[in-house]
This record gives sequence, structure tokens and C-alpha cells, in this order.
Amino acid sequence: MDENSIGIVETKTYTFCGSPNELVLNSGEKLGPITLAYETYGKLNGDKSNAILVFHALTGDAHAAGWHEGAKKAGWWDSMIGPGKSFDTNQYFVICANVIGSCKGSSGPASTNPKTGKPYGLSFPVVTIEDMVVSQKHLVNHLGIDKLLCVAGGSMGGLLALKWSVLYPDSVACVIGVATNYRHTAQQIALHEVSRQAIMSDPDWQEGDYYGKSIPARGLALSRMIGHITYMSEKSMEERFGRKLIGKEKLGFDFTHDFEVESYLKYRGTSFVQRFDANSYLYLSKALDYCDLSEGGGLVNVFSKAKASFLIISFSSDWLYPPYQSKQLVKAIKANDLDVSNIEIESSYGHDSFLVEVDDQAKLIAPFLKRITKETNNV
Amino acid sequence: MDENSIGIVETKTYTFCGSPNELVLNSGEKLGPITLAYETYGKLNGDKSNAILVFHALTGDAHAAGWHEGAKKAGWWDSMIGPGKSFDTNQYFVICANVIGSCKGSSGPASTNPKTGKPYGLSFPVVTIEDMVVSQKHLVNHLGIDKLLCVAGGSMGGLLALKWSVLYPDSVACVIGVATNYRHTAQQIALHEVSRQAIMSDPDWQEGDYYGKSIPARGLALSRMIGHITYMSEKSMEERFGRKLIGKEKLGFDFTHDFEVESYLKYRGTSFVQRFDANSYLYLSKALDYCDLSEGGGLVNVFSKAKASFLIISFSSDWLYPPYQSKQLVKAIKANDLDVSNIEIESSYGHDSFLVEVDDQAKLIAPFLKRITKETNNV
Repeated sequence: MDENSIGIVETKTYTFCGSPNELVLNSGEKLGPITLAYETYGKLNGDKSNAILVFHALTGDAHAAGWHEGAKKAGWWDSMIGPGKSFDTNQYFVICANVIGSCKGSSGPASTNPKTGKPYGLSFPVVTIEDMVVSQKHLVNHLGIDKLLCVAGGSMGGLLALKWSVLYPDSVACVIGVATNYRHTAQQIALHEVSRQAIMSDPDWQEGDYYGKSIPARGLALSRMIGHITYMSEKSMEERFGRKLIGKEKLGFDFTHDFEVESYLKYRGTSFVQRFDANSYLYLSKALDYCDLSEGGGLVNVFSKAKASFLIISFSSDWLYPPYQSKQLVKAIKANDLDVSNIEIESSYGHDSFLVEVDDQAKLIAPFLKRITKETNNV
Repeated sequence: MDENSIGIVETKTYTFCGSPNELVLNSGEKLGPITLAYETYGKLNGDKSNAILVFHALTGDAHAAGWHEGAKKAGWWDSMIGPGKSFDTNQYFVICANVIGSCKGSSGPASTNPKTGKPYGLSFPVVTIEDMVVSQKHLVNHLGIDKLLCVAGGSMGGLLALKWSVLYPDSVACVIGVATNYRHTAQQIALHEVSRQAIMSDPDWQEGDYYGKSIPARGLALSRMIGHITYMSEKSMEERFGRKLIGKEKLGFDFTHDFEVESYLKYRGTSFVQRFDANSYLYLSKALDYCDLSEGGGLVNVFSKAKASFLIISFSSDWLYPPYQSKQLVKAIKANDLDVSNIEIESSYGHDSFLVEVDDQAKLIAPFLKRITKETNNV
């Protein structure tokens, strides 16, 4: 635990929209009651003007910062959230909630369907990025916050933040979108689809009805291996692994692993199976593929609803969400004469940069939040 | 059939190195008898100085040009090989042979092991790029050719051509390497490894012993889906598919296909299963990952053995074998004061460009071959 850690934290849950007030989803289907897992760091000030909602990436969770009791590692954005960090918990009240469809404490396909007493499986409705945002608005209301100082996130989290800005323009002062996009391209959809097919091709998947039986471990591990290749850049993979052999002096001339990069991927795949639900991967990847912020008259028109200030950060070596996609987004925001900054950070870490390049992000995020706080207080 | 087609062609086979003269492979294991499938186009001239050996890519075959009787499509490089084409069969005698390890008529894991009367499966020895080249040298000798005018190929075929130039420097006048590399990077190995794991994770794979039973169709299809994403560029995928929906007006909110790119990948995966053997995919991808032309004292030193002239072509949007890798290769060749040209062709077709960008390649290849022919005849 570093000296600027927020310390020991706990995940809480909030359950809402019970029958008959179920949430009507984008699909037309209803979902309820809905549980969201969330954590908070720092203190909400008197006029409730210092709240920041942080959204996690596809396989993330509510545990963004600090340490769970007895845990071996900190929350996923602990380097960014804490006293004196980018999201300074001495100044801000930071909330991070898990999304619906996930398996990290919120309602998702692995949750028990209250109507049947059994896990939903594929009977869980397909949810969208908008559905996730709407459900988190319930949580923010529950916490008594009318207007957030900031919504922020990387990757899928960035899309959620952007969606919030056009769905609840009066409920947010600024948006920080990192390593993100406004809609998936064909290649992004293709990469997700292969990952989904890896899961659904596993005989243990059983049309999603595997709870309490064998889980589709092979398919899920494969899908994660594909994911990991896309999270790293070619350069970072080369620098870290190159053609290094694993524990042998020469090639094995068989089909076990020869190269370190092979065993790394295997390790990543296998450990992912321990912590994530295969069906949730299907739901969340689908939500990302479905999301198109330009729907409803084009991107410029959609952002005509927005009122926030924007900070859009991309990374030079991110080939999953390349910088040019951020530029397209920024162009549409600018076309509405909104306050927007776009910075491309030089980094070799690929898409993972948003979890790694802490100092460079801090230099942008801390002053941005300070300025917005000042402007908000002056209004 | 276009008017410049070589017309109807047939695949022949050549079998050699029968017991006790089996080929000793890089692994130390022996293989024999070895059968190679091959085709030839055009006529060998009197002094046998006009022969070009073309190598195919990973899942290719000996049928590079012309039409098989009753076939619905031409050979894989028919646009490049034929009368008046890049490899002009009015002038040159073009040979294309399948590689060992493949399933396209040559000895590979699906072949019958003469010692057991059963398919080899995983008892087929792991072969290398060098083993493939050595076996093809037997074929070239059999055809009575001492020195090839040219060895040429794209992708894996390019690596084979480069390997020939350092293994048999006196047996080739020039080398054309297209969309290729001198060794696989960590990312290239990673992409192959995920494809292999897709196959080996399929319960029908049965440790490679599936012949005459259910084939690992799901795993093989998955591996091809991954491959196809890497063969196209982000741009070409976007231009061809974007977010176009397949035969529906709105999103389906389920886990069947929504987007054209999804069904395209599925189609590519499924059709690949009809034409390729899963074990061969394992063997050939492993051969590529194993190959490192810089082994033996570094790339510059390795090419000190070479005597040929080189034409190295890359494509701007090829992210599987990016142009910078060709430049590294060219640098090492140049360091030996060898005749080498390196051209990066602007193209949005990604790695597939070497099959698509016919005109641009013709403009480079035809005059290069003409010059080398002239120089060779003047010696």
C-alpha cells in the first residue's frame, strides 16, 4: 500500500427498481430489481458539488481504488484515485459503480432471477451502454447528488462517460474520456465477435446455462488471450517478450509452449477464468458493439445536447482505440462550440496505457478538474 | 477465365527420400518418403535458365495459377502468373510446390504414415521453414534445374524465398519477397498461438487424432476468424463492412449475428474448415514462429552468404507484416552490398494486399525479372 493510498475500502450495493417499477431497457425488455455494486472514496462536500463518477472498462469492477481487506493488489485505478492523485480524494468524492450485465456484484447473467430462483443465464436481457448509464443515474440520485463535477473513464468507461454527457447534460460539469471511441468500428466488432465465438463454441457453454456445472473455461480463456493481444502494442509486446524462450534453451519441436509470450497469454487466459463470468463477457462486449453515439442524427447533432467541458485523452500506440478515433469525436464536440481538449500521449503501452501512464494523465486531469471546479463554483 | 489465363492446369506430385534415405529435419527427426504436390506453368528453356519457384502462404497450395478442370476459381496468384502477367509464362517457367506439413497433396500430419498405415497426426515431425526449402530443392533438382532465375513469395512464401537465398546462394539469381519478415515478433507469435489454442481447445481435436472421426471444426473456424482480422486492415474492414447490419433493420438484442462483419468472419471460418486440416495449421504456424533468419550470427552475417538480387515489397496498411520489418531486412541485405530494392506500396488492403494489388506489383516485378534475366544471360 503506497503512502497515498485511500486505504482499506469496501464494496457496497444498492438495489432499486423492484417490481412493478422495473427499468425499461433499450431493447424494450424490463429488468428489476437491479443491484449495483459500488465504492466511494473521499467525502461528499456540503453542497454536493465535488462528486466524480468513474466508469470501469469491460472486465473491470467497482473496486477502482484502495485495498480490500487482505487483498494482494489494489483497485484497478488506484494509481489515479487517492489523496494527491489525479482524482484527488482530499478534494473530490469519487464513486465507482459496476455496470449491469457484469458479474462483479451487479445484476447480470450470473445473478439469480428473482422470478425463477435460478441464475438468469441468457434470459438476462441484452443491455446497452445507455442502460448502464441510466441505472448508474439511479445510484447517483440515491447518493443525493444532482450534478456530478465529472464523469470519467477509460475504454468502455470512456463511452459510458460520453453517453452520460448527452443523456444527462444538466447533471455533469465535465467529462474525461480516455482511450475511447464514440462507436465500434468493424475491426473492433470483429475482435469482440471472435471472442464471443470462442466462448459460445466451447461445449461447456451450453447456451449459457452452465452455472453450477462445468464453466466454459477453455472458451473464456481463449477470448481473454485475444483480448490481451489487443490491449498491448506490438512494441510493448516485443520489448517485454520478443522471442524469449520459456525455461528451455532451444525450441521444443512440439506443440507445448516455446516462447514466453505464449505462456504469458496462457496465464492471462487461465487467471481470467477465475475472476470473470463467460456470459458477462458476452453481454458487455455486445453492449460495446451496439453502442453508437452518433445515432440520432449524427455525432455533431448528438453532442449539441451536451453542456459539459471535455478532456479526451488517447495514446499513440493504442491500436484498439486509436487516436484518430478520439480526433473524430473531438471534432464533433468542437463543432458545438463546447470546451474540449484533446491530448494524444506518446506511449508504447498500447490500449493498456490508460492503466499505466499515470504521471502523464495526472498532469492533464488534475489541472482540468481544478479549473472546472473553479468555473463551477464561480457560476 | 481471363484471356491471359494459363488455362487448365493439373497438380502433379513428386515422391522422394524413401527409406533408408529419409530427410533429416532440423529437429533431428527423419521424414520419408516425402511427397510434394506441385504445378508448373510455361516452358523450361533450353539452358534451363528461366525457372521461377513461387512459394505459397501459410494455408496456400501448389495451385498458384490457371484453372483446375471444372473449378469455380483460379489459382491463388492467377492474377500474377500467366501470359503477359507479372510472372510472364511466355518467358518464364514457373513452379509452385506445396510445403511439407500442409494438407494440400504433400506429406503432412493428415498423410498416411507408411510405417503404420494410419494418418500421422501429431506423430508427424515438427517441420521448419528450412525443412520446407530443403525438400523443395529436391523437387527443383528432380526437374533438372541447377539454378533458379528467381524464388518468390508473399507472407510465409516470402520467408521461404529468403531462406532459399541463404541456404542455396548459388542456386538462385534473384529473390522477390512480398509482405514478409525475417522472423516473427512476439505479436505475430501471440496471434498464431491463440489460433493454435483455439484448435487444441476444441474437444474434437483429440490430441490431433481425429482423422476419420469428428474434426475440430469449431476450433479451426475460430482460428481462421482470428487470421482474417489480421489479413485485413482496419480501414479495409471499415470500408467493406462498417457497422452494416445483416439482413435486419435494427439490432437483434440477442447473441446471433447483427453486423455484416460478424457473418463474414463466420463464413470465412466455416468455409476454411472445408478446405484445410487443423493439424496442418498447427504445423505450419509453428514453422513460421520458429523461423528466425537472423540465427547464426545475426541478420547481416546470415545474408553475407547470399548472392542474389532482392526485391522486397511491403504494403502500407499491412499490420501483420508491417513495412518497418521489411526495412530491417533490407538494411541487413544492403549491409552486404547486395543488389536490393525495397518498395512500400500504398494500399488499404492490409496483409491481403499481396493477393490484391496486382498492377502495382506487376510494375515492380516484371521489369525486375527482365533486368535479372538480362544480367544473368550476360554473365
